[in-house]
Amino acid sequence: MKSPLIQELIEAFRILPGVGPKSAQRMAYYILERNKEGGEKLSQTLSRAVSEVGNCALCRTLTEESTCTLCLSTQRNSTELCIVENPTDVTVIEQSGVFKGKYFVLMGHLSPIDGIGPSALGLYLLEARLARNEITELIIATNPTVEGEATAFYIQQLADSFGILTTRLAQGIPLGGELEYLDSGTLTQAFIARKKV
Amino acid sequence: MKSPLIQELIEAFRILPGVGPKSAQRMAYYILERNKEGGEKLSQTLSRAVSEVGNCALCRTLTEESTCTLCLSTQRNSTELCIVENPTDVTVIEQSGVFKGKYFVLMGHLSPIDGIGPSALGLYLLEARLARNEITELIIATNPTVEGEATAFYIQQLADSFGILTTRLAQGIPLGGELEYLDSGTLTQAFIARKKV
Repeated sequence: MKSPLIQELIEAFRILPGVGPKSAQRMAYYILERNKEGGEKLSQTLSRAVSEVGNCALCRTLTEESTCTLCLSTQRNSTELCIVENPTDVTVIEQSGVFKGKYFVLMGHLSPIDGIGPSALGLYLLEARLARNEITELIIATNPTVEGEATAFYIQQLADSFGILTTRLAQGIPLGGELEYLDSGTLTQAFIARKKV
Repeated sequence: MKSPLIQELIEAFRILPGVGPKSAQRMAYYILERNKEGGEKLSQTLSRAVSEVGNCALCRTLTEESTCTLCLSTQRNSTELCIVENPTDVTVIEQSGVFKGKYFVLMGHLSPIDGIGPSALGLYLLEARLARNEITELIIATNPTVEGEATAFYIQQLADSFGILTTRLAQGIPLGGELEYLDSGTLTQAFIARKKV
């Protein structure tokens, strides 16, 4: 009993992650009943973002400029390069404030089964950057998943061929974590990498 | 460290009900990284819906036509009119298949504190409809909340002035419900309205 256009709008909302039929219906009716202005703004911003946002020419992160502000910044240490899988990883690391170097965003991880090889991750850009001999330390911060580890290993070999120091983020017990609820893989890593106090 | 446009998109997603900062960020990155086509479609549908969807001239429900399909239908019983608060209530009642009459959608409930009076609910349209003497039964299906009850009472008085039979949906134990978990208000109603078997 919904009009075709409302039905279409509900379907369109369903592409969003975590949005099922009920949420999509709630969103559509909320906008049409109570916030047409917000809906119009969302439509316009979405359209602009979809057409204007692309990848940074240097680090591949998402940006509407040709080169992102982080890559252009002169305040950052250009000799340290941190490799992450996604733009959100950059945000999280920036929030911690622990890293003052530059980033390279893979926009994914190696996954031969999905046809994602080194070139899809823009590793030729990374290679060209390593060849310029500006980088002294490559910090690999891919996710500790099977694909993330495989990607890290590939990049490590690439860096080795240029003789560049490669490091990885430490694995162990997270702060505030409780041993009782820790998975055995993490616990094993924490034991192996134990330190003298 | 997000580009201004991405930040703007995240803010725009936050107007949606049930969407917090994390979900909004996830939606924005999902579209920009993996589904620009879906994002473009969402933007277009949203824009069309916001500009084209309005209220049905007869029942006030949301539709992009001047009169909705339910109001135009000749298959429906025009002597029974069911009053509901929202277009979603129509969907739910239609799903049950129990009602074959027509609807009138208030698009809200009386709420003097928010400045929502009888005219904001289009009750003048309802009055004009009752005056035409076509309706023999008015089924009030507003929500069993304080505002819903107040709205029901107001509409009931309106119908009384035209001498039209008014009914309300029965209150009691929901099917599949367990007494143990029932609120005392519902239980009281169920006791008061108990029937001889």
